[in-house]
Amino acid sequence: MTFGAIEAGGTKFVCATGSGPNDLQRVTRIPTTAPDETLTAVLDFFQAHSSPLRALGIGSFGPINPHADSPAYGRLLNTPKARWSNVDIIEPFQALNCPVAVDTDVNAAALAEYVWGAGTDVDSLLYLTIGTGIGGGFVVDGTPHHGLLHPEMGHLRVRRLEEDTFDGLCPYHGDCLEGLASGPALEARVGTQPEKLPSDHPIWSIHAQYLAQACATLIYVLSPERFVLGGGVMQQKHLFPRIRHHLRQELAGYVDLPRLTSDLDSYVVPPHLGDRAGVLGALHLAQRKALESHSQVPSHEHLSEHD
Amino acid sequence: MTFGAIEAGGTKFVCATGSGPNDLQRVTRIPTTAPDETLTAVLDFFQAHSSPLRALGIGSFGPINPHADSPAYGRLLNTPKARWSNVDIIEPFQALNCPVAVDTDVNAAALAEYVWGAGTDVDSLLYLTIGTGIGGGFVVDGTPHHGLLHPEMGHLRVRRLEEDTFDGLCPYHGDCLEGLASGPALEARVGTQPEKLPSDHPIWSIHAQYLAQACATLIYVLSPERFVLGGGVMQQKHLFPRIRHHLRQELAGYVDLPRLTSDLDSYVVPPHLGDRAGVLGALHLAQRKALESHSQVPSHEHLSEHD
Repeated sequence: MTFGAIEAGGTKFVCATGSGPNDLQRVTRIPTTAPDETLTAVLDFFQAHSSPLRALGIGSFGPINPHADSPAYGRLLNTPKARWSNVDIIEPFQALNCPVAVDTDVNAAALAEYVWGAGTDVDSLLYLTIGTGIGGGFVVDGTPHHGLLHPEMGHLRVRRLEEDTFDGLCPYHGDCLEGLASGPALEARVGTQPEKLPSDHPIWSIHAQYLAQACATLIYVLSPERFVLGGGVMQQKHLFPRIRHHLRQELAGYVDLPRLTSDLDSYVVPPHLGDRAGVLGALHLAQRKALESHSQVPSHEHLSEHD
Repeated sequence: MTFGAIEAGGTKFVCATGSGPNDLQRVTRIPTTAPDETLTAVLDFFQAHSSPLRALGIGSFGPINPHADSPAYGRLLNTPKARWSNVDIIEPFQALNCPVAVDTDVNAAALAEYVWGAGTDVDSLLYLTIGTGIGGGFVVDGTPHHGLLHPEMGHLRVRRLEEDTFDGLCPYHGDCLEGLASGPALEARVGTQPEKLPSDHPIWSIHAQYLAQACATLIYVLSPERFVLGGGVMQQKHLFPRIRHHLRQELAGYVDLPRLTSDLDSYVVPPHLGDRAGVLGALHLAQRKALESHSQVPSHEHLSEHD
């Protein structure tokens, strides 16, 4: 039997079936439009699949209730994507007659990197995505962190650079990290698509400094054993050495550990799973859910490469 | 049999024996001087106690290795308290012939509040202390968070207020949170002891704004279910409503949950255990260690009030 995976994003839902990085099948993108339309198309995708699913995992944009023991599990909260507020993202898939698990898209990506990617040799991993929005997922000992709801790391405040006069784009906070350093912020600053800019354009230095500041704060608060930077903006590979350079300055040697000083190149890394981290994380959520439903034993012990 | 507890701080070691908040005995303060001198005096305290200890718990200033499976468990790293760099804080207590557990002072305080104080009704609790330094401890599902080493939350960057010209006191970062908003920073700004200032002194508003900024960042990153603010500076109770006021502005309703909007008064709270949180947390570390050594069963299930 196979597992189903959905990476539910603000512009598209990526759907797939399979059992892992070497067995990811029928990867299909469905545009995010009205909830009914999108969710029906996604359900059709899985129903058209010949064999029944063992379980379905969803890594979703948020804010969403990720607490499996809550009556509102899988329900979106108020979101700027207005039509999606209060949508129950699990309910339509009850028709598949299999267990369904939901977490945030970034927790799913963090989980996939922890289990199959950049984090197979560590016990805690932070995944920060810098794209249309900025968000972070955090896994410790195989468990994605939720807390009260789930982290919203993209909205932490950074210190403005003196030369930067851009107001910021966040509808809530103006110039929080996401407001200053997301993909749309990049585009608004320069009036063109970021991927068309040369790598020596001065805007990259500004973005690298904001991202390095955020990385330093996240390291001070979470102390992850590995730090993965993903998302569309990080396709600009020249950002990695820039961010590491500024991060080293931000940390100023305060925590005197090799990973945070001499070994930063292997500490702050791109996702090993590339842009498949999200959908693979959703797949792993499904696998954990199936094991949980079957045996109540923590699933990551059976599926991860951490031993 | 009884348990031993040490809250190891930069100015004093608080030692006690007992079994919980209603049974905390022989609380004794020993000044922090040279490592040999201090640790010998602390050992004498416990050896003078008539009955043998079941286990000893230490909540220590840092940076310190808190990983029980590491050969360097209980060893301090480079610290501005120069003579204490590389000191092994467990080794002298082998003479007591009982299991010894170490965590950070702030994780110990977070644990005590989680088990016996402000967090008995939640699954995750953040404890931020604002005193000589600023530091944070975080407990999720009964487990204190460590990661790579342990968090150093006091060193996150805040955005400077325009009217603030103070350079900041952190030897590493200058004007990080600790550099701008610790007790010594308060004192350096006004040239007198903070506790002598009237509650309407303008300095309190500046500090409340920095602390609220830090609280917002910590909420975005950790999403704790309860947020405890302790330490000497927070003895100024008028800071609580000020911080909540600015925090509400910082969050700007982005995460639309009652605890972060209408119910902030019961979300950001003082420690229920007052200044005993640290030493009680150390006591609980000892109890967990004893249970672990005895049965390998997660101890918090037996000792906490979370059921």
